[in-house]
Amino acid sequence: MSSLSVRHLLGIKELSVEDIELIFSTTDQFKEVLQRPIKKVPSLRDLTIANVFFENSTRTRLSFELAEKRLSADVVNFSASSSSVKKGETLLDTVQNILAMKVDMVVIRHSSPGAPHFLAKHIQANVINAGDGTHEHPTQALLDAYSMREKIGDLAGKRIAIIGDILHSRVALSNIFLLKKLGSEVMVCSPPTLLPKHIGQLGVKVEHDVRKALAWCDVANVLRIQLERQQIKYFPSLREYSLYFGINKAMLDALERPIVLMHPGPINRGVELSSDAADSHHSIILDQVENGVAVRMAVLYLLAGQR
Amino acid sequence: MSSLSVRHLLGIKELSVEDIELIFSTTDQFKEVLQRPIKKVPSLRDLTIANVFFENSTRTRLSFELAEKRLSADVVNFSASSSSVKKGETLLDTVQNILAMKVDMVVIRHSSPGAPHFLAKHIQANVINAGDGTHEHPTQALLDAYSMREKIGDLAGKRIAIIGDILHSRVALSNIFLLKKLGSEVMVCSPPTLLPKHIGQLGVKVEHDVRKALAWCDVANVLRIQLERQQIKYFPSLREYSLYFGINKAMLDALERPIVLMHPGPINRGVELSSDAADSHHSIILDQVENGVAVRMAVLYLLAGQR
Amino acid sequence: MSSLSVRHLLGIKELSVEDIELIFSTTDQFKEVLQRPIKKVPSLRDLTIANVFFENSTRTRLSFELAEKRLSADVVNFSASSSSVKKGETLLDTVQNILAMKVDMVVIRHSSPGAPHFLAKHIQANVINAGDGTHEHPTQALLDAYSMREKIGDLAGKRIAIIGDILHSRVALSNIFLLKKLGSEVMVCSPPTLLPKHIGQLGVKVEHDVRKALAWCDVANVLRIQLERQQIKYFPSLREYSLYFGINKAMLDALERPIVLMHPGPINRGVELSSDAADSHHSIILDQVENGVAVRMAVLYLLAGQR
Repeated sequence: MSSLSVRHLLGIKELSVEDIELIFSTTDQFKEVLQRPIKKVPSLRDLTIANVFFENSTRTRLSFELAEKRLSADVVNFSASSSSVKKGETLLDTVQNILAMKVDMVVIRHSSPGAPHFLAKHIQANVINAGDGTHEHPTQALLDAYSMREKIGDLAGKRIAIIGDILHSRVALSNIFLLKKLGSEVMVCSPPTLLPKHIGQLGVKVEHDVRKALAWCDVANVLRIQLERQQIKYFPSLREYSLYFGINKAMLDALERPIVLMHPGPINRGVELSSDAADSHHSIILDQVENGVAVRMAVLYLLAGQR
Repeated sequence: MSSLSVRHLLGIKELSVEDIELIFSTTDQFKEVLQRPIKKVPSLRDLTIANVFFENSTRTRLSFELAEKRLSADVVNFSASSSSVKKGETLLDTVQNILAMKVDMVVIRHSSPGAPHFLAKHIQANVINAGDGTHEHPTQALLDAYSMREKIGDLAGKRIAIIGDILHSRVALSNIFLLKKLGSEVMVCSPPTLLPKHIGQLGVKVEHDVRKALAWCDVANVLRIQLERQQIKYFPSLREYSLYFGINKAMLDALERPIVLMHPGPINRGVELSSDAADSHHSIILDQVENGVAVRMAVLYLLAGQR
Repeated sequence: MSSLSVRHLLGIKELSVEDIELIFSTTDQFKEVLQRPIKKVPSLRDLTIANVFFENSTRTRLSFELAEKRLSADVVNFSASSSSVKKGETLLDTVQNILAMKVDMVVIRHSSPGAPHFLAKHIQANVINAGDGTHEHPTQALLDAYSMREKIGDLAGKRIAIIGDILHSRVALSNIFLLKKLGSEVMVCSPPTLLPKHIGQLGVKVEHDVRKALAWCDVANVLRIQLERQQIKYFPSLREYSLYFGINKAMLDALERPIVLMHPGPINRGVELSSDAADSHHSIILDQVENGVAVRMAVLYLLAGQR
């Protein structure tokens, strides 16, 4: 019986290839469970999981909450908007309080890179990073890679283009780490202003022409323009971005060989993706959402198994 | 064993009289359950229900949540205020995401008329309309009619006056549809500015004098002044409204024969109803709330039975 | 088999010494449960508890919710920020609605002193006061006293200093009531502007020099500066308060005999407490949080036992 090499899921960086394979094979099993009329298993009965979201989220929180409830865990939700955070409490104090209440697992989203790592140092509960600033979002990368593999098989040697706002995206960074570990060739494609300065150190190709990226790749993972996280002055306007980097169905249909279109959501329809592209047969966007619950069940189940 | 003729509860319009009778007889059974010390039954164990509220609500969300938990369902709550809706996501994308997560039933409140119908077209889950703009609010109409019948028996031939802001009220429209199906005579009573233009097509009497309406009816269902939903210019001020349409206990006591007073809540005390009227023996307002949980249990139970 | 003398936990004032001892001995048992890998007991299975929070809260709501879920109760949460309260509904109407839904227990936090008492008069459910304005916060006082006793034994004759904003603190008042009932000597220490006018009637010592208070006491319970609740004009600025009333580790280390440092949270680090003091070996702040869940389990369990 194998187990993960880590006690927490803080980032893809900390995972071994064996860890990733174990998560994927466990996800296969939970996907089968989710096809059944009764989608619930008693695995985490009697464990309490706190979802601690310092940033708003629909899909990630709901996806974790569903995964937790289908594993029969007890769930408490904490969101910063109705909390002591507004009263000026520090992250450590908020978290120590949650932990003194003897929660077994904590799923945390926070705007500061490293917040989950900080948390993991101070507590006994298993910590799962549900997004820390522009740093990592490991369960998203896992569900992305799982969905790719489900569609096109083994990812070694496959060409994956990550297109959009790389600079403000934690999804991009976690995807790059994971795809490199699985042996894929990775390209990032974005306007120069939306690339991080350290991009040269990540071992990825850089492309500024979205048509060339689409022609090169097996999978195009298109990111959201993170308007709410943007702090730089110069930027293509949404109209410019849409004009030069927006992807529509005609562009996909015109490619010499078919590619797979992905998006972590929420989609800005008409900006990075046209509606006809998002809803086309090229897209596996809803498979990603469906796989998200199964991947998160796998991660929670495997981390709990180490207790 | 009978079952509903519909897969979703989108509006009263779509229900047959047999559907309504089935919901009422099932509600009778759940009312008995709610009198017991243990109010929980295992009927929906292993089903997951998402409460998706794009508009704020106390009583409706709580009433549904209690109904769901007493049926042993797993419940996830989604409210627009802490969601991707703020990030500019479309209704369809939000909802498709919730659905790709394989939720079994969705209870939705939305400010756009037809949102639940749109949703029902795109998904496999059962959809229950918990209020769509100024259109329908079917569970409210069901609990209103159930409460009337509990108090005065068969509604065929009975006279029901709906008093207040008909224009902005989804409760009014669902009530009219339902009461007409059950054979009641229906009157609406309001200032001319608060009547919808198509009122002539609904087969109801129109009255502008609240005293005449009270003298005519067996039941007065008094609606909330929907200040937050009002968009027209001319309107009686709250003081004027209260003066000409407000109902107090003295008016009820002075009637030649007793009538039943109802209100879907939340009450604007001192506007459409005085406190002494709301709290008088004429009122069955709290019975409505109590019946609401039982009616919703019946609806959820019957829809789930079709799966 | 003993039971509480009250049906509701409205305040410490209403509790007998026997009630308090019973709560403490029941807490001992639940603390043992919380040390186990499986922290859940079926005691309140089939009961529904509503957490009705008209004021924001992290730790109190979470602590109650965990206590409820570990007792296997069904939990519904109501927060004023997403409710009909904004639509102008009265407290009584909101609450009557919740109650007509046949909830078994209500945990309520409200900004108006007496709101839980008002509620208890009108309903059949057990009411637990989770803080009513500047009045009482009984479960906080119970967990504070429980934590003190765990650390220094029987509180009779012990010297407890309550330091900080006494005027705006419900914690102070509940602590004073409870500690006097248990036979402690109680001192309050604060700037004159942060003392309530009726302080002379409470049978406590008054001190304005924090160093003298620390030298006198066995336990220092340091309160939060309630910036958000402050309404008076003259007040020491935060800098002044910190300068004259702030406590740091050096001050604690320099005392002739060791004292116990407490704080109900959330801490304003650098204002009433320095970080080195809060995190020092003098502090039992996290024990308070841990004990909070067990104390609340005990209160809920004992009140439910009377049904």
